[in-house]
Amino acid sequence: MTAVSRPQTMAEKILSQRGARPVYAGDLAVVEVDGVMVVDSIAQSFIERMERDLEAPPKFPERVSIVIDHVAPASTVSVAQAQKEAREYAARTGVRLFDVGRGICHQVLVEEGLARPGWIVLGSDSHSTTYGAVAAFGTGMGATDIALAAASGKTWLKVPESVKVTLHGELRPGVAAKDVALEMIRVLGADGATYQSIEIHAGDRFTRGERMTLANLCVEAGAKVGLVVPGGEILNLYEVPGWVYPDPGAAYVREIELDLSALAPRMSAPSEVDNVHNVADLRGLKVDQVFIGTCTNGRLDDLHAAADVLRGHRVAPGTRLLVIPASSEVMEQAMADGTLLTLQRAGAVLGTPGCGPCMGRHQGVLAPGEVCVSTSNRNFVGRMGDKDAQIYLASPAVAAATAVLGRIALPEDVGAA
Amino acid sequence: MTAVSRPQTMAEKILSQRGARPVYAGDLAVVEVDGVMVVDSIAQSFIERMERDLEAPPKFPERVSIVIDHVAPASTVSVAQAQKEAREYAARTGVRLFDVGRGICHQVLVEEGLARPGWIVLGSDSHSTTYGAVAAFGTGMGATDIALAAASGKTWLKVPESVKVTLHGELRPGVAAKDVALEMIRVLGADGATYQSIEIHAGDRFTRGERMTLANLCVEAGAKVGLVVPGGEILNLYEVPGWVYPDPGAAYVREIELDLSALAPRMSAPSEVDNVHNVADLRGLKVDQVFIGTCTNGRLDDLHAAADVLRGHRVAPGTRLLVIPASSEVMEQAMADGTLLTLQRAGAVLGTPGCGPCMGRHQGVLAPGEVCVSTSNRNFVGRMGDKDAQIYLASPAVAAATAVLGRIALPEDVGAA
Repeated sequence: MTAVSRPQTMAEKILSQRGARPVYAGDLAVVEVDGVMVVDSIAQSFIERMERDLEAPPKFPERVSIVIDHVAPASTVSVAQAQKEAREYAARTGVRLFDVGRGICHQVLVEEGLARPGWIVLGSDSHSTTYGAVAAFGTGMGATDIALAAASGKTWLKVPESVKVTLHGELRPGVAAKDVALEMIRVLGADGATYQSIEIHAGDRFTRGERMTLANLCVEAGAKVGLVVPGGEILNLYEVPGWVYPDPGAAYVREIELDLSALAPRMSAPSEVDNVHNVADLRGLKVDQVFIGTCTNGRLDDLHAAADVLRGHRVAPGTRLLVIPASSEVMEQAMADGTLLTLQRAGAVLGTPGCGPCMGRHQGVLAPGEVCVSTSNRNFVGRMGDKDAQIYLASPAVAAATAVLGRIALPEDVGAA
Repeated sequence: MTAVSRPQTMAEKILSQRGARPVYAGDLAVVEVDGVMVVDSIAQSFIERMERDLEAPPKFPERVSIVIDHVAPASTVSVAQAQKEAREYAARTGVRLFDVGRGICHQVLVEEGLARPGWIVLGSDSHSTTYGAVAAFGTGMGATDIALAAASGKTWLKVPESVKVTLHGELRPGVAAKDVALEMIRVLGADGATYQSIEIHAGDRFTRGERMTLANLCVEAGAKVGLVVPGGEILNLYEVPGWVYPDPGAAYVREIELDLSALAPRMSAPSEVDNVHNVADLRGLKVDQVFIGTCTNGRLDDLHAAADVLRGHRVAPGTRLLVIPASSEVMEQAMADGTLLTLQRAGAVLGTPGCGPCMGRHQGVLAPGEVCVSTSNRNFVGRMGDKDAQIYLASPAVAAATAVLGRIALPEDVGAA
């Protein structure tokens, strides 16, 4: 372990450890990279950088993962061609390939143990902050930076300042980790933590899946990384090195306290994630499509929450409910425990594990004027299709209630079956 | 019942009955239409004909069904817009709408009881011959003819000549209705029954689902209609009017006998459906994608056949297996009876009920040079994506065996789990 002279945040801890010298906010750190993740839509650029520009093989092929998730199965010949090239690259270099249907990159890396406490994982996708759920320094980068990291095994980073978010109290029934994350973004603002580390002190609260929701959404406040201090389920799932934890007295640029017991279900209205309201205030708006899935909320916890609301009910006529599990593992578990059957019987439309319509590239693109309630992470203009469609972000329970009533609703609005 | 003077084929029977006068091959018949089916991809044209050209409402709205299946969920904004217009048209006219995820048009109409023995059902899809499985005169037409039928409740048809196909013997294990259909197409040729009725005398053989496979593929020999003489399961599922059956001594332009006991698993090689070979002769070819689904072979029978081969095995590395149930009902049944879990555990990638990649419009489009074994109905150049991709058509059991071995294979090539 690296000797340090003054108290450190989690971000400083990890970057010091993986750079083998003590660093603090504002320093430049050159660090070992434990994982490099490339998604299908960036794979061609990545391969071109590696083979044409850098003329280099991956330094540690076993640390590089290509995940075919953004448009999977392929929607066009050019998408199919790009995926074919990704498979061929994986075959000739020995990097890991997670093909069509395995699931969303972030979910797959966590399931596969390719993001672990204290690791640094770079992904070619902005929601790579998700790895912070397991105390990995996860962050998104472009194809060029990702390729340099794959070729050299290292990257350089300016050490981010940290915002400390401390959670108090317990959530009321029907309120979820998603609501905590949306409230956090409301308080911080969409650019309130730009290039900062959001360090979430959650105690023993939340499953790994729920922590992934929290870390995932940190990027929607502009954060470079979102680190959830290990506790609860994480301590059972991983051997957490003692040096990962932030030191008492570490320096934060901002400290925020959230009282979970005071929180009601929240919703981001169009067209910014920080345009957060109580669901109760948006109740009643007619909804065309409900989408439950994504790296934010497509896990078993999420499907359980949705099934608990939908059990014995039917999706409202005139409303479509798309459910896309985040991975094949989630799909299999939800199939084995009866959750999918509950959803199917309620009229949900199941889709292939992957990103689904989150980026508006296939599998549920919105028409002009359509309204969608989505468990995803971005409600920007045009995100899921037409620029005149409207996206509201919410938890799986709120999404499920909305599907049953065909209008924005709270779980409590759905009567007992 | 209409009085007739000489023996009639099934096609002549139905067109006489629904036209209220005896007709024979070559006659022009004006008939009542019991069902009009419009798919998503033709819906805009259909609506334009109805509202702009004919300026007419549907004569019998309850006989008209719009099914969103060809590209569902929507893959682009323009597809989403077309589907939105279809929903709006259904809402303002009272026609039936089967939305995203309900399933493939032909499967849905049969499940919903919207194709029945003796009925005439016109569909805006060439595989509308499928309804012949339940002794309905089903045939495909373009948007204009479909619209005229919807507006008037009638259509006119030249009464087709009939080819009589008589089945003998019993299939050996591992041989399926699909193999019978491919063999029939080989014998007839791709244009061997152009504008004719293929009347299949199957006795009590085959489930409704298997009969749908037979009737579905009749159009691949050019047939106007494919009628399976009611027997077996059909007699339990429907009240079959006595007048539907063909008369002894009816006039056929051609009679074919098929000995099922002599039949081995068959496969249509690129790029014509009648390019039929024994699977054994094509064994060993490396396959990139296997697709089990479609109106031809996406039913519970088919998923059972695939699961029987895949149980305890895994899809070969380097090969993708897409499984897309033909309808939400199939999905639910296969979920409830454990079939989907077997497929999922074997590494299958599940997709939303609908047409999937059959027409190369989304959800598994093929890249240049890729090879696909598919349970679908057409292997034409470019059908599932790039013109340099190759499609082989086979039964679900052969497709499943191919997925396990990563190469074209027979079910018997897959060892016991």
